[in-house]
Amino acid sequence: MQADPFDANALRNGVLTRKLARFVADTQWRDLPAAVRNEAKRSLVNYFAVALAGAHDPTLDKAVAVYERFRADENATLIGRNERTDMLNAAALNAMSANVYDFDDTHIPTIIHPTAPVAAALFALAESHAMSGEELLLAFVLGVEVECRVGNAVSPEHYQRGWHITSTCGVFGAAAAVAKARGLDEDAIVWALGNASVQTGGLVETLGTMSKSISVGNAARNGLLSALLAEEGFSGPQAPLEGERGFLRVATSKPDWHALTQDLGHEWELLKNTYKPYPCGVVLNPVIDACLDLRRDARWSLDDIEQVELTGHPLLRERTDRPGVRTGRESQVSAQHAVAVVLSRGKAGLEEFSDAAVADPSLRAFASRLRFIDDASWPVESAQVTIVLRSGERIPHRVHAARGSLAAPLANVELAEKLKQLAAYGRSGVDAQALIDRLWKFDTEHDAAAVMRIASARGSD
Amino acid sequence: MQADPFDANALRNGVLTRKLARFVADTQWRDLPAAVRNEAKRSLVNYFAVALAGAHDPTLDKAVAVYERFRADENATLIGRNERTDMLNAAALNAMSANVYDFDDTHIPTIIHPTAPVAAALFALAESHAMSGEELLLAFVLGVEVECRVGNAVSPEHYQRGWHITSTCGVFGAAAAVAKARGLDEDAIVWALGNASVQTGGLVETLGTMSKSISVGNAARNGLLSALLAEEGFSGPQAPLEGERGFLRVATSKPDWHALTQDLGHEWELLKNTYKPYPCGVVLNPVIDACLDLRRDARWSLDDIEQVELTGHPLLRERTDRPGVRTGRESQVSAQHAVAVVLSRGKAGLEEFSDAAVADPSLRAFASRLRFIDDASWPVESAQVTIVLRSGERIPHRVHAARGSLAAPLANVELAEKLKQLAAYGRSGVDAQALIDRLWKFDTEHDAAAVMRIASARGSD
Repeated sequence: MQADPFDANALRNGVLTRKLARFVADTQWRDLPAAVRNEAKRSLVNYFAVALAGAHDPTLDKAVAVYERFRADENATLIGRNERTDMLNAAALNAMSANVYDFDDTHIPTIIHPTAPVAAALFALAESHAMSGEELLLAFVLGVEVECRVGNAVSPEHYQRGWHITSTCGVFGAAAAVAKARGLDEDAIVWALGNASVQTGGLVETLGTMSKSISVGNAARNGLLSALLAEEGFSGPQAPLEGERGFLRVATSKPDWHALTQDLGHEWELLKNTYKPYPCGVVLNPVIDACLDLRRDARWSLDDIEQVELTGHPLLRERTDRPGVRTGRESQVSAQHAVAVVLSRGKAGLEEFSDAAVADPSLRAFASRLRFIDDASWPVESAQVTIVLRSGERIPHRVHAARGSLAAPLANVELAEKLKQLAAYGRSGVDAQALIDRLWKFDTEHDAAAVMRIASARGSD
Repeated sequence: MQADPFDANALRNGVLTRKLARFVADTQWRDLPAAVRNEAKRSLVNYFAVALAGAHDPTLDKAVAVYERFRADENATLIGRNERTDMLNAAALNAMSANVYDFDDTHIPTIIHPTAPVAAALFALAESHAMSGEELLLAFVLGVEVECRVGNAVSPEHYQRGWHITSTCGVFGAAAAVAKARGLDEDAIVWALGNASVQTGGLVETLGTMSKSISVGNAARNGLLSALLAEEGFSGPQAPLEGERGFLRVATSKPDWHALTQDLGHEWELLKNTYKPYPCGVVLNPVIDACLDLRRDARWSLDDIEQVELTGHPLLRERTDRPGVRTGRESQVSAQHAVAVVLSRGKAGLEEFSDAAVADPSLRAFASRLRFIDDASWPVESAQVTIVLRSGERIPHRVHAARGSLAAPLANVELAEKLKQLAAYGRSGVDAQALIDRLWKFDTEHDAAAVMRIASARGSD
């Protein structure tokens, strides 16, 4: 008799959670398609890149100052930093570093940043419990699968209500990943998800403030803790996701039950993951692409420009029409700042979207020359930038699919370059090339924790 | 110009959070009415009672086994246990002990169990940062005030949706209390509440499972952490509660903005706190009262009883018509079990609602003799139990206001007796009388942490 996932009794009995748990317990490395294995390594390269960049943000300095008062041992590495800490703190703080600039990866259907919570938990575990690169990658893929499927099941209403979906769903991913890495059985994986279900928090209201980082860190830390508790026999409800008062029903008024388990093992959420080329809101990507191209062939100077027209989907204007920004963080969602700084400097890295860049008066003056032209027929990953010179000449440049979109993913060499640049930005002295080389071969790595020794600011001493 | 709390701009700017923060920062011991000071001590007596009872529940044994792997030091006490641990773990684990049987206090308007998250955080802090009993009591009162006002503002929909309100609101109470105890200023208290706002989790779905205890522990631990981070300058949003994507709007579709701040300093939430005489759902209280009275004057034996009629508000039947229960936990909300065990044994303690009690075949057999008579005109805190003997004689007994209700609060001597009985139940060897004596004089105590030394299973050695 086939269980219908919409049957109230089946939901009450946890048919969906159990199916997910069984999938996590049963899936082996040989079951993963080559593209999924490859995307897992790409996600990790991007993860170390952003974690190295964020490791010394003031948010991290303050969090480390407090969390380090409560470290049980020094078994774990803080990426890009000198301090060592215990497993739970490392999970929290490394997830914070990787996400603090919102420069980490994006699962397109949900806008979850999937890697930070899952990878931070797994690498922290790997420093105390030996595992191979292959084992870590398998657990990572399954963790992301659970995390993003829970996200799919509560989207889009969950985020719209104000829940920070990376935090609220990340804890399930970290719990599933660690449960897999520890070899828990189906029952214990259900418990791990139950233990995670009471630890989902995080608010969109806190974006742009330090508070946001707490919940991203908690997603990793508490997911890890959830699995360790389940391993100890600490038990939970049978239907933490689909039960009458389970996570899906509190998270949204319209749960998509199917999303949790349909095509499990055939459709892989990790293949919907993308990596940002610029530290900005994704709708700005095609605009920045166009400005970089225009600047490359520049037959004009900034002073020659009368106006810049931005043609794109109305979302572009709605999300980024933001003149007069005052902080680096705000500038990351300002078309005015992005166009000015990229046309002026020919670069679009973290330095171009910093407090210092925003303070540049020539860039601020440029803001008034921007004009938006809405066209709802344009896909969001496309845009046209038209420079109108004082001479009257018009120089249009259209981008059909922005770099970093699913249609034009960053190449491996670009991800490696991102890691090098962000490692340099973070000034941690990490040997970026050694880290990159190791990560591309990570599936053959005997000791998964070896990369953490390279990623520590202390190097491999 | 008076700020209207319903004005969208004022809400966006955090007018209500700021008012709460200012109240916490400004209020002094001399501002607390005598009744509030007294209720604070009563809440603490009840807190230590339930924590001593729960300290060795299997939930705690398993949690301690995992949490103790991550203790930074041994500065803090686990109530009723031998192990020592660090401040954050103590906050989590003592809150779990106090709530694991749901035998802790109840704030009537919200059904929040207010004391466990707030007191556990404060006593953990007090063991590292010296404070007087008066200082701790003041911080406790203010923490409970914030916790219950946030609860009022999201009730009743929040709990009905499936959020475990003790966990979700407790974290704000613990944050406010610790912020007060650390002497944080208004800005930092706003940050502490912001840091707490991303750490609200807990699901009704997990009641009756071990998972529930994680979120109650987190409320204490993460509230404490929120304030310590704020003290370090870790900042948050200005409107974590009332902002457009703030806690109140994600927690309920109908926030009661007024509830957050109206009559602040005049109306005290702690005065709406109650203490359970029996480890059962509160609707059973008048039934148990009646059965205890009937048993006291018994002119009959259990075998003489043909039927027992329960007359009361329909909620009594809806919540407790539960024959054939199989676990102690289920028996706590079963009228059939409650009537049988109390008429048979003349007691209503944790032993009477245990797995062992449920297994007694004579009690199970009695279940079929119960009959409910609904009468919506009866208040929930009242009920009538009528024994119908085989001889045809009817022995009715009516209870107008159950023991432990706001109308018939437990007397101090009854709270002390509860502590003695639960300390004995927990078998921790704690000197209950010494603890009680100390708590009734707690406002004159020089060192708030002294009671923790008595409450440790190691005694004051």
